[in-house]
Amino acid sequence: MNYKNLRPYKEEYDYSYTSGAYATIEMLKANPDVVRTVYIHTKYAGIEDISGLCQDKGIPVLYDDRAFERINQKENSYVLGVFSKYFCQLMPKRPHIVLVNPSDMGNLGTVIRTMAGLNMFDLAVVTPAADILHPKTVRASMGALFHIRFQYFASFDAYKDAFPDHVCFPFMLEGKIPLSRGNCPQAPLFSLLFGNEASGLPDQCKSAGLGVKIPQSELVDSLNLSIAAGIGMFIFAEKNELI
Amino acid sequence: MNYKNLRPYKEEYDYSYTSGAYATIEMLKANPDVVRTVYIHTKYAGIEDISGLCQDKGIPVLYDDRAFERINQKENSYVLGVFSKYFCQLMPKRPHIVLVNPSDMGNLGTVIRTMAGLNMFDLAVVTPAADILHPKTVRASMGALFHIRFQYFASFDAYKDAFPDHVCFPFMLEGKIPLSRGNCPQAPLFSLLFGNEASGLPDQCKSAGLGVKIPQSELVDSLNLSIAAGIGMFIFAEKNELI
Repeated sequence: MNYKNLRPYKEEYDYSYTSGAYATIEMLKANPDVVRTVYIHTKYAGIEDISGLCQDKGIPVLYDDRAFERINQKENSYVLGVFSKYFCQLMPKRPHIVLVNPSDMGNLGTVIRTMAGLNMFDLAVVTPAADILHPKTVRASMGALFHIRFQYFASFDAYKDAFPDHVCFPFMLEGKIPLSRGNCPQAPLFSLLFGNEASGLPDQCKSAGLGVKIPQSELVDSLNLSIAAGIGMFIFAEKNELI
Repeated sequence: MNYKNLRPYKEEYDYSYTSGAYATIEMLKANPDVVRTVYIHTKYAGIEDISGLCQDKGIPVLYDDRAFERINQKENSYVLGVFSKYFCQLMPKRPHIVLVNPSDMGNLGTVIRTMAGLNMFDLAVVTPAADILHPKTVRASMGALFHIRFQYFASFDAYKDAFPDHVCFPFMLEGKIPLSRGNCPQAPLFSLLFGNEASGLPDQCKSAGLGVKIPQSELVDSLNLSIAAGIGMFIFAEKNELI
């Protein structure tokens, strides 16, 4: 993809990009089919053989610093991986993470990084939601985005209709089960539901299953979304021997 | 404090500020002594009685929108709490969280919010480190900063000298103990050590105690610092009945 066609990211474009060597390498390894072009800046001084990796996969490498100016990035990153936007389908026989209306790209990317770290690979996102393919989300995920499957749903009901066999566990402050080492619920196939940063889960999600809560003091309104999801996912992953 | 004296935040100033109603109210409740002035924007439409709270504490409330312009904030926040920078001393008989060279204010603030949520109130920060009183840190903490004690140390040795009785648990990928529901170590008085986002813990910290690790897949380099700290603190808090 010629640098002249690159623009600062917009949701309506059919491409996005990774920024930095680490995320770009993750993408090249995990999902090379979506990569259009990799740009390497003349100032790049990393030791990774990115061009060799691209060559193996038949992906063009361009050394043109103007590409970095075109996208008007804030960070000083010297590797840029342009990729075609893509869609996935969740696996029906795997545990799911369901984020209902996540609004912050940093949180979304951090949840994805944690998922990959805990061997949870299927993410349902109920819209409206932050843009999962936005460079900021990709960056917060440290490229882990390319290791997982994600799927957008227009409503929680649409998700439930698609995966009726999953047992849902809504995470909510008024949940009946305080999660602890001993009492994490078990299910053959589970979905962990987390709500929006400010408003939490809508009522229809709260009643979709046994509510669980992370024990916490009354000094905070709640834990940060990515922290609550991280703790919740860890406990379920451990109990169900995913890690 | 007159709006004309306000400037965009700098580390060398003797004041900082909370941005937004929530964090400002947390500060007013938890640590009113440090508050100099609260500004309320004419567009503020929140229901909280911030001026009443200030009045109770003898804190001046000013309605001057120019204050918001002076600090050149990015967010649209309509409440601004100017506070004098302050220092704390850690409690010697409480569990400690030790962050060694944290570099990201978002992570630092998120760890603080999680600490307050898990009833852990003493944070040691080994410098160089992100600025704990920076408005961005305060914002990421959602005002939980005002519920905890924090203390800077020029080196990890300086921390250990000050608190020789704490049993240290360095969190590291090569830790001997994979944390799980069953095997979280117990200690009458513990310090949980977490390293820098990119470089982890320095060697002197790694050998300061029994290394623990959070089981994770090899698909990620590591978990995000605030997530690793969140999971680690949760397990220790639960095991030691802090929550």
